[in-house]
Amino acid sequence: MAVLCRPAVAVPEHVITSEQTLDLVRTVHADHPQLALALRLIENTGVAKRHIVQPLEDTLRHPGFEVRNKRYEAEAKARVPQVVRQALDTAELSPRDIDLIVYVSCTGFMMPSLTAWLINTMGFRPETRQIPIAQLGCAAGGSAINRAHDFCTAYPGANALIVACEFCSLSYQPTDLGVGTLLSNGLFGDAVAAAVVRGSGGTGVQLERNGSYLVPRTEDWIAYAVRETGFHFLLDKRVPGTMEDLAPVLVTLADRHGWNASDLDFYIVHAGGPRILDDLCKFLGVPPEAFRFSRATLTEYGNIASAVVLDALGRLFDEGGAEHRAKGLIAGFGPGITAEVALGRWSAPAAPRTARAPKRTAVPELAV
Amino acid sequence: MAVLCRPAVAVPEHVITSEQTLDLVRTVHADHPQLALALRLIENTGVAKRHIVQPLEDTLRHPGFEVRNKRYEAEAKARVPQVVRQALDTAELSPRDIDLIVYVSCTGFMMPSLTAWLINTMGFRPETRQIPIAQLGCAAGGSAINRAHDFCTAYPGANALIVACEFCSLSYQPTDLGVGTLLSNGLFGDAVAAAVVRGSGGTGVQLERNGSYLVPRTEDWIAYAVRETGFHFLLDKRVPGTMEDLAPVLVTLADRHGWNASDLDFYIVHAGGPRILDDLCKFLGVPPEAFRFSRATLTEYGNIASAVVLDALGRLFDEGGAEHRAKGLIAGFGPGITAEVALGRWSAPAAPRTARAPKRTAVPELAV
Repeated sequence: MAVLCRPAVAVPEHVITSEQTLDLVRTVHADHPQLALALRLIENTGVAKRHIVQPLEDTLRHPGFEVRNKRYEAEAKARVPQVVRQALDTAELSPRDIDLIVYVSCTGFMMPSLTAWLINTMGFRPETRQIPIAQLGCAAGGSAINRAHDFCTAYPGANALIVACEFCSLSYQPTDLGVGTLLSNGLFGDAVAAAVVRGSGGTGVQLERNGSYLVPRTEDWIAYAVRETGFHFLLDKRVPGTMEDLAPVLVTLADRHGWNASDLDFYIVHAGGPRILDDLCKFLGVPPEAFRFSRATLTEYGNIASAVVLDALGRLFDEGGAEHRAKGLIAGFGPGITAEVALGRWSAPAAPRTARAPKRTAVPELAV
Repeated sequence: MAVLCRPAVAVPEHVITSEQTLDLVRTVHADHPQLALALRLIENTGVAKRHIVQPLEDTLRHPGFEVRNKRYEAEAKARVPQVVRQALDTAELSPRDIDLIVYVSCTGFMMPSLTAWLINTMGFRPETRQIPIAQLGCAAGGSAINRAHDFCTAYPGANALIVACEFCSLSYQPTDLGVGTLLSNGLFGDAVAAAVVRGSGGTGVQLERNGSYLVPRTEDWIAYAVRETGFHFLLDKRVPGTMEDLAPVLVTLADRHGWNASDLDFYIVHAGGPRILDDLCKFLGVPPEAFRFSRATLTEYGNIASAVVLDALGRLFDEGGAEHRAKGLIAGFGPGITAEVALGRWSAPAAPRTARAPKRTAVPELAV
């Protein structure tokens, strides 16, 4: 069965602290009629610092969509290979062992997607399948895990690579002045992450079931307005309350699997904001420390979009992982409003490690 | 096994003929140093007419990326439901029988993708999985079929809906004057298409194997430059020659399946342009009429991007389909340069039709 192995995560070298963010909002938006509210919302996020791909002064300038998107491409090419190599090394696989790359990123747009460049430059086989997803936002981290899981279910023994590349700071829109935007400006951060889903062997989360759920009639709650200036992020004030709809969905999925969502051993969920984590604790009836991994991601990096679930999972690994066969849940939430949920058990084979590059059994492929 | 059922295709009501295209190029680009070449290239496409979502005079104006992208959304919402309903009806399924929607479209950008709107408005279950793909261009039609096939392999009995929505005319860039652009302006057309991949039962192509292939070091041969004015299509003059690289890939895939790529019963390939079809005939050693479906799509609609393979397949259905168990190949080609290839057999059950909405057996899902 497919195992989601240890993620590799990298954040950029430029840092903006919570204090800097608040000072900036006070200065830039001194006359904003809802300044106090915006400051309170940002303080409530619990974000201590964020990492961004450019120095702050460059981040605050909007050089045009074309320049920004080129910057996105350059930063992706500069930063993604390192996490990909690390994720492969940790999973004890080489690029040639990978059958599918799922690349998720909503903060820049390239056609062809970065998958083509990765395959060409990093030694992946030309037969590697590509699933580039740009339109699932923060839910795409969960989606990537689930589509990789589906693929490994279809082709037992196949291996998939997941990449999440999010440079949210490149979507900063200085002319957007709604409170939701000011909050977003203080919430999102940049990061790249990668992880391998091994068809067999490996240490990590053995994926057993996945599900998707679209909360009816919430399409415009999290959305992009696409303009000459690029992607403008729209965040409805009802979004933080969506766990009331989504907690029962998690309960139902776990129940169908014979599990109790309130009594799992680990939880890796999208840290969209503090209310999401607080509400999930409340509605699932689990203690706050159950969400310590997601909370730490939020505090140290901000909301890093589709990379959150991979970073939070990395923190579980940092803690030494869980007991063999421990039950857990992974959930990404994002535009739609879509939830992408996975259930799995911690798998830490005590036996001698699986041989490197296990024989793949059933992946039809093209070859030259 | 998964069966790709009869596609539904719709083209817009506004028509531009080859004569109008050539006249327009002569008028607009009267002083272009390579006018004669551009005219010859356009004539050589063999496109007789194309259908576009707006009257010609509106198509030629660029009202800005924001307005265009809003137009994309409005046209998609106006035109996609009809083909979706028709594809479902033909496959004898209802929206509630669908487990996955693969939505491919590279001529507009929405987040959330149209999948969310379709699920909310057309009666699909909130648990329907979404794979929106915007970055595989013309290859995405083949990719959609293949990802649906993978999904139905993972979850036997599951059903997938494929939607291709391409309004190429909304990417017309009047300031781009390269010969490749002038050719593209005379080649691409608009269309929407949908098809169901049924997990069991149904008449159509029973999917047996799929494969993907990225031609090394051709990333920039077909690409978008992303600018304030939207997506600018870049077409390298080497693209028409790529069948020399890709024909062996088709041969190898067929060979691995125990089939001879030169001796199949039907061929449904992306009609990127006439040279692709001519070269495939030559390199595979099959007669030109083997590609009559793709040729007809090109002649009547132009290159309708990811919708080509669905339209060409529709024409095979129009002809009465093939013999039961006849062997065929479906191939999409697009940016990367990526080929997405499927092998399958015509399946036309002689027995009484499979009951409507067959019991699905193994699709884990969320439910409220």
